[in-house]
Amino acid sequence: MKKLLIASTSTVHGKGYLEYILPELSKFFKGIHEILFIPYARPGGLSHNDYTAKVQEAFEKINIKVKGIHEFNNPIDAVNNAKGIFTGGGNTFLLVFELYDHKLMSTIKNVVENGTPYFGTSAGSNVAGLTMQNTNDMPIIYPKSFITFGFVKFNINPHYLDPDLNSTHMGETRETRINEYHTINDTPVLGLREGSWLEVNGSKVVLKGKLYARLFQPKKQAVELPPNTDLSFLM
Amino acid sequence: MKKLLIASTSTVHGKGYLEYILPELSKFFKGIHEILFIPYARPGGLSHNDYTAKVQEAFEKINIKVKGIHEFNNPIDAVNNAKGIFTGGGNTFLLVFELYDHKLMSTIKNVVENGTPYFGTSAGSNVAGLTMQNTNDMPIIYPKSFITFGFVKFNINPHYLDPDLNSTHMGETRETRINEYHTINDTPVLGLREGSWLEVNGSKVVLKGKLYARLFQPKKQAVELPPNTDLSFLM
Repeated sequence: MKKLLIASTSTVHGKGYLEYILPELSKFFKGIHEILFIPYARPGGLSHNDYTAKVQEAFEKINIKVKGIHEFNNPIDAVNNAKGIFTGGGNTFLLVFELYDHKLMSTIKNVVENGTPYFGTSAGSNVAGLTMQNTNDMPIIYPKSFITFGFVKFNINPHYLDPDLNSTHMGETRETRINEYHTINDTPVLGLREGSWLEVNGSKVVLKGKLYARLFQPKKQAVELPPNTDLSFLM
Repeated sequence: MKKLLIASTSTVHGKGYLEYILPELSKFFKGIHEILFIPYARPGGLSHNDYTAKVQEAFEKINIKVKGIHEFNNPIDAVNNAKGIFTGGGNTFLLVFELYDHKLMSTIKNVVENGTPYFGTSAGSNVAGLTMQNTNDMPIIYPKSFITFGFVKFNINPHYLDPDLNSTHMGETRETRINEYHTINDTPVLGLREGSWLEVNGSKVVLKGKLYARLFQPKKQAVELPPNTDLSFLM
């Protein structure tokens, strides 16, 4: 059965990397001693090695070893043999480019649909949706397609940000951008605020954390959903 | 000779649509009584007709008629016959998708390189660069390519926004995003603040408006450039 944690962010303000979600991760990866890390999104251009070292440091606190996929000669075998997978944040265009380039989009999709636990943050969560089309990132590279894993049957906008009512900047708000998406697409979009995550078990999806999430659907007013909302109706 | 005005935004805070730049437009389009408008970027999902009507209302004040490209049976002929072109803002992915879909990328490039005056705002300015890869927009549609007109030999980040030092949001700043771009690309990127524009005459490019612009180059510290800086060294 499919099992995922899809988090808006790796880091909440004032805490260390993954710190806020470590207790959850400890339960989520219970009984697993090593996970496979996908560093392809390279936040700030961080190297695969440095990014993996940072993730190792966080997971050591819950006694889980981390191996970066770039350390394997055959990344497809690495995915097929993994006991758990974590895809970190960074640039979604780069992540999706690399996933297609290494022919991993279908491989990861397959193992996760068959029960390998998957944890994602930010870009790694965005790709859990049907497409990457609600990313906030800059298109620094041209990926083969915008279609992503589709572990949930909607799209995810990580780091969801409410409009700043005092701003004099004329660029679009996050809500305006998502509404523009819905003028030509029908897929529902969930705006996940930093500190929120989705718990997925099979086709059951529940909103976790202390914050509300904002659900956008075409031709409907956006709605605020409280923590523990069952989102399975979107599956 | 190539002649362009490349503006960061259509609208500055507290003023009407195009109001701040109408005096410049009056000089730029001197002697031209009708221009062709490209409404493809559809800000907020605005229809081509409604967007064109909005532009007409602004240009009426300087006695210039506006016709939307969607009003022509043959858009390629419309471009070839245009006395001036204005590409408005909205979603850059949608704009670039439509430009390729209507086979207009090379047609517009050709007439502008041969002297048809081109005015762009926001998305319409971003596409004046070599690629659209420094847009701020959401990838609401998959364009055929990220390569754009290349009227200037660098990329443009419109609506450039300085980091908010008081923010507790963990999403990337604009500067971080552009630096991520430079970890895998070499094209210089000009961050144009709202109220700034570029005046292009042949291979001469000058920064106009009252604000500084921020120039990002790979492996260099970003620099602030004052108004009237000659940017021809980037061509």
